[in-house]
Amino acid sequence: MTVAVIGLGLIGGSIAKSLKGFMDCKIIGCDKDNNTVNNALSDEVISEGYTSGGKFLEDCDFVILCLYPKANIEFVKENAQYLKKGAVITDVSGVKEFVTKEIDGLLPDGVEFIGGHPMAGKELGGYANSCDDLFKDASFLITPSEKNKAETIDFIEKFAEYIGCAHVIRTTPQEHDAVIAYTSQLMHVVAVALCQSPILEKSAYFSAGSLRDCTRVALINEKMWSELFLENKKELSERIGEMAEALQEIKATLDTNDRNRLEEIMKASKERKLKWLSEKYK
Amino acid sequence: MTVAVIGLGLIGGSIAKSLKGFMDCKIIGCDKDNNTVNNALSDEVISEGYTSGGKFLEDCDFVILCLYPKANIEFVKENAQYLKKGAVITDVSGVKEFVTKEIDGLLPDGVEFIGGHPMAGKELGGYANSCDDLFKDASFLITPSEKNKAETIDFIEKFAEYIGCAHVIRTTPQEHDAVIAYTSQLMHVVAVALCQSPILEKSAYFSAGSLRDCTRVALINEKMWSELFLENKKELSERIGEMAEALQEIKATLDTNDRNRLEEIMKASKERKLKWLSEKYK
Repeated sequence: MTVAVIGLGLIGGSIAKSLKGFMDCKIIGCDKDNNTVNNALSDEVISEGYTSGGKFLEDCDFVILCLYPKANIEFVKENAQYLKKGAVITDVSGVKEFVTKEIDGLLPDGVEFIGGHPMAGKELGGYANSCDDLFKDASFLITPSEKNKAETIDFIEKFAEYIGCAHVIRTTPQEHDAVIAYTSQLMHVVAVALCQSPILEKSAYFSAGSLRDCTRVALINEKMWSELFLENKKELSERIGEMAEALQEIKATLDTNDRNRLEEIMKASKERKLKWLSEKYK
Repeated sequence: MTVAVIGLGLIGGSIAKSLKGFMDCKIIGCDKDNNTVNNALSDEVISEGYTSGGKFLEDCDFVILCLYPKANIEFVKENAQYLKKGAVITDVSGVKEFVTKEIDGLLPDGVEFIGGHPMAGKELGGYANSCDDLFKDASFLITPSEKNKAETIDFIEKFAEYIGCAHVIRTTPQEHDAVIAYTSQLMHVVAVALCQSPILEKSAYFSAGSLRDCTRVALINEKMWSELFLENKKELSERIGEMAEALQEIKATLDTNDRNRLEEIMKASKERKLKWLSEKYK
């Protein structure tokens, strides 16, 4: 089997590093940055490298798109003619409805796309920060459609498990985007919004862990995340609106001295969080 | 020297555990829960224990109030007649203006109060979770007033360093409360508000670290935090209002497809956060 990893950044680089030995495959890497390709070759993470798509795809049974969402779509558009009959294409994009619809519309007959989204990351991106244990114990969301064969879905699950993911979850592109708008995108919005405060600048020694943790993901790649946000803007806009309302409700308890209601809100949130923890770490 | 630690919960217990050997002192503990007192005695964390204030305070040179803010004030009110002339009283309350004003008004002549606030905590409270390294590398905020002697301020700084704090910061009660409303209280409000979403319940496998980190402090003690919030409600209410506005501004960039402005906001937050990190970990 021959696998192509398109884009050797944090996620693509980490996938390539975790793939070694998977079904005895040959791993080809593609990245527009020549240095990255050379580093991956000299690290023996890939055995063949390219700086753009092309004829090498004719040999590839499995293509993993690890560029930004629109760039993944663009790559498929430019290289559709090279894709091997029977090949399986997946991606790692953080939005699924938009990407799935676009890519499905571009693929030749006999080539299957199945969307994927590994729930892992780091504050710092790029090949230099990629590693072979990024996916250890992570979740991997897959969004199969009725076009996918059962064996293709099984294959993607095996792939996800091989790179280290502990939970492979099947969902739909729509449900993926609705939930991710909250679990990932809203958290990044909150971190960014918190860091808009000028008080942050005089607060280095006025905080324990809560400020650090709530703002961890404010070290954001603005190009990638603004693309992800806008490609899921309906869902995310609703989640932000709900969060602003939840804040205003807490503010109202202070403004009206309503300690009972304030305690009720805190208790309900604590109980929901405990339930989440017991579900996640059961 | 004889020291009394009033309240042997997470903070009081950890202070008592970290105090051993400080200026060759004898450590007395006081907690309304008899089991806690017995545990601290059998752990040899304290050498004398009480379940309420009283005459033992007549021997104490240094009294550390580790109850909730209003309970600290109540304790001083009930025990003012026992306080030794020349004694130094401090506290660990998360609000300072209210507490300082109240306690200053209750103390007999010749007894000095100086407010303190160690920037450390854990999701789970109580003596059972206290430890001797809770304050390692933490900041310790002190809020001296013009009533405090220079030697008293120096003494509190030595105490803070002895229990493990890396940075002792002098500020005023007013500035303390304004900054803490953001660095600590708003982070707790945000975590609580995020956990109001019903989506949390179906999201255990749909998240990497950002949801976990942004909601870590939602496991909140609602009795203590609602008291702290209401005792600093003017500042906190303003911070919540600003946060809701920052969210609405980001929401507007999505609703109007303004990618440039969205990227600008993200970039500004990232730069502010990087500055904070370089200040905090320099």
